[in-house]
Amino acid sequence: MTKAKAYAALDPHSALVPFEIERRALGPTDVQIQILYCGVCHSDLHTARNEWNNTLYPSVPGHEIVGRVVAVGEQVSRFKVGDLAGVGCMVDSCGDCPSCHDGDEQYCEHGFTGTYNGPVFGGENTYGGYSQTIVVKESFVLRIRHAETDLAGVAPLLCAGITTYSPLRHWQVGPGKKVGIVGLGGLGHMGVKIAHAMGAQVVLFTTSASKVEDGKRLGADEVCVSTDPEQMSRYTGQLDFILNTVAAPHNLDALLQLLKRDGTMTLVGAPAERHPSPDVFGLIFKRRSIAGSLIGGIRETQEMLDFCAEHGITSDIELIPMQYINTAYERMLKSDVRYRFVIDMATLN
Amino acid sequence: MTKAKAYAALDPHSALVPFEIERRALGPTDVQIQILYCGVCHSDLHTARNEWNNTLYPSVPGHEIVGRVVAVGEQVSRFKVGDLAGVGCMVDSCGDCPSCHDGDEQYCEHGFTGTYNGPVFGGENTYGGYSQTIVVKESFVLRIRHAETDLAGVAPLLCAGITTYSPLRHWQVGPGKKVGIVGLGGLGHMGVKIAHAMGAQVVLFTTSASKVEDGKRLGADEVCVSTDPEQMSRYTGQLDFILNTVAAPHNLDALLQLLKRDGTMTLVGAPAERHPSPDVFGLIFKRRSIAGSLIGGIRETQEMLDFCAEHGITSDIELIPMQYINTAYERMLKSDVRYRFVIDMATLN
Ligand SMILES: [Zn+2]
Ligand SMILES: [Zn+2]
Ligand SMILES: [Zn+2]
Ligand SMILES: [Zn+2]
Repeated sequence: MTKAKAYAALDPHSALVPFEIERRALGPTDVQIQILYCGVCHSDLHTARNEWNNTLYPSVPGHEIVGRVVAVGEQVSRFKVGDLAGVGCMVDSCGDCPSCHDGDEQYCEHGFTGTYNGPVFGGENTYGGYSQTIVVKESFVLRIRHAETDLAGVAPLLCAGITTYSPLRHWQVGPGKKVGIVGLGGLGHMGVKIAHAMGAQVVLFTTSASKVEDGKRLGADEVCVSTDPEQMSRYTGQLDFILNTVAAPHNLDALLQLLKRDGTMTLVGAPAERHPSPDVFGLIFKRRSIAGSLIGGIRETQEMLDFCAEHGITSDIELIPMQYINTAYERMLKSDVRYRFVIDMATLN
Repeated sequence: MTKAKAYAALDPHSALVPFEIERRALGPTDVQIQILYCGVCHSDLHTARNEWNNTLYPSVPGHEIVGRVVAVGEQVSRFKVGDLAGVGCMVDSCGDCPSCHDGDEQYCEHGFTGTYNGPVFGGENTYGGYSQTIVVKESFVLRIRHAETDLAGVAPLLCAGITTYSPLRHWQVGPGKKVGIVGLGGLGHMGVKIAHAMGAQVVLFTTSASKVEDGKRLGADEVCVSTDPEQMSRYTGQLDFILNTVAAPHNLDALLQLLKRDGTMTLVGAPAERHPSPDVFGLIFKRRSIAGSLIGGIRETQEMLDFCAEHGITSDIELIPMQYINTAYERMLKSDVRYRFVIDMATLN
């Protein structure tokens, strides 16, 4: 066992504080990683504050983890000490259900084990990336092919990156397709970059006129201010696919109208309160769909990391010390970050 | 021009009454049909009573039309006098948009011309099947291969049949697939018959325990009373596809939970008031979809008619005289029909 410094929420209402955790002894198929950077995801905040009513305390958030391998079990073949490595939202799954067999561990029929707050799906509590080190079975550890100097910007790919990459691939976004990305936050800015790199024509929908230039810089071919009905009407029936990253409840009908026949709008944000109910006529009259998508499988996460390395894609980040985390949460709630906070874990020492 | 007896709604609040209409002179590509039977669809009632706020009066409903060809234009090649023929929900479309080119005239980008109340999408008013005769361009007339003795039960295939066949085909229902049909009304009973004939394992979901036996007789392998949570829980994560025919607002979440990963629930009923808003988590955690579907294209309608003829499928009907239509509407509102009213048009003479 290894003792490790960490930051934890001890109850739903207090700030995160320094906390010491123990990591398990290295098993034969385990990889131990010194955590160098950890991205800050909205799920971290929801969990720390028990907003999904399933948090086990103490809670150590963080599932956008990158670092360096410091030890490997005797049966580990794909990693050696000194390698860069990543860990995302999952550290285990049953391995034996149809979803696991298909490489869709995120949909494991018995529930995957989350990198933190694992007991949502059973088992002991798990502690996430707001810590110095983590021990994870090899099959849930990702290879990093980006340059080491890019490492901080790679961390958010492990959740924000795969959450957008997976649906864009699943719904076959690519050359000749016109794709809407709704929302320019941590998820949305990855969606714009990745959809652009996939060769699609990308239209960013944002409520903030102030984000138009940034949207174009990130790779959007066009930016539509979605509060302007005249701008919206230009896209009626024009889009093959919409990736909707906005978690706040909003009018889905105005966006559904932008889809072509047989188009799909996929939601990756989970609202605390429900969206206004979508109009069924908007679905029926063009055979449109509303879908949801959850992160991505391990094989697909590796594919995404390799794709991003090849296309020079990282997240736009603001690097922070561990001690800044409570302030970072408050700023996240105001969308005051372009576009992801990443913790420099050296500041924990 | 031909004068024809018909039944029309003259305003939203009065009963339908006898009314005389004129049918256009036969053009070179037209087929004139003596209407023998016309099914009674919920859309007829919605239109007669202006419940969609788009009715042009006088309104002659009816878009489940079967009859005999009595005249053909000089360029007509697929029909001759004496043939049986059918007309469904559409009598024209632009013919030149991507949807029309793909044979999906129901999604015509310029709007198809409805068999009745056509001006919803522009043009002159059109009068439907509650009449003695109709003139329709050949390309929107369907061949009937059923035996003539089955003809009254064929009429509802033109709307209820294609409305269920099209999504079952589009979402690839067939052997090895487990399919839920929600609701056992005019649409649902066709859905059960057709999905069964396609070789799928069919589970009927109904709120009426009294319909269990009928569901099995119609072709359901299993019937689940959807108001019983214990019965519902047996199907959690079991279904590949759900065809939801219920137009009344209802809880979609309880049904979405029954879908496997990547499953779709397709709505073909259009509620006057919105369903309770579906839970996004139910979509996200299994990459499920909610979709809509509208009738079907002309080519697919012919395919459906041929499929039903081959498999001996007709609608279960209650044959009524034209004069009974207002009573039939009241009974439809109470779901007091097993499972479709069909008007014997000879009673109009
Ligand atoms: Zn996350
Ligand atoms: Zn599994
Ligand atoms: Zn109809
Ligand atoms: Zn068209």
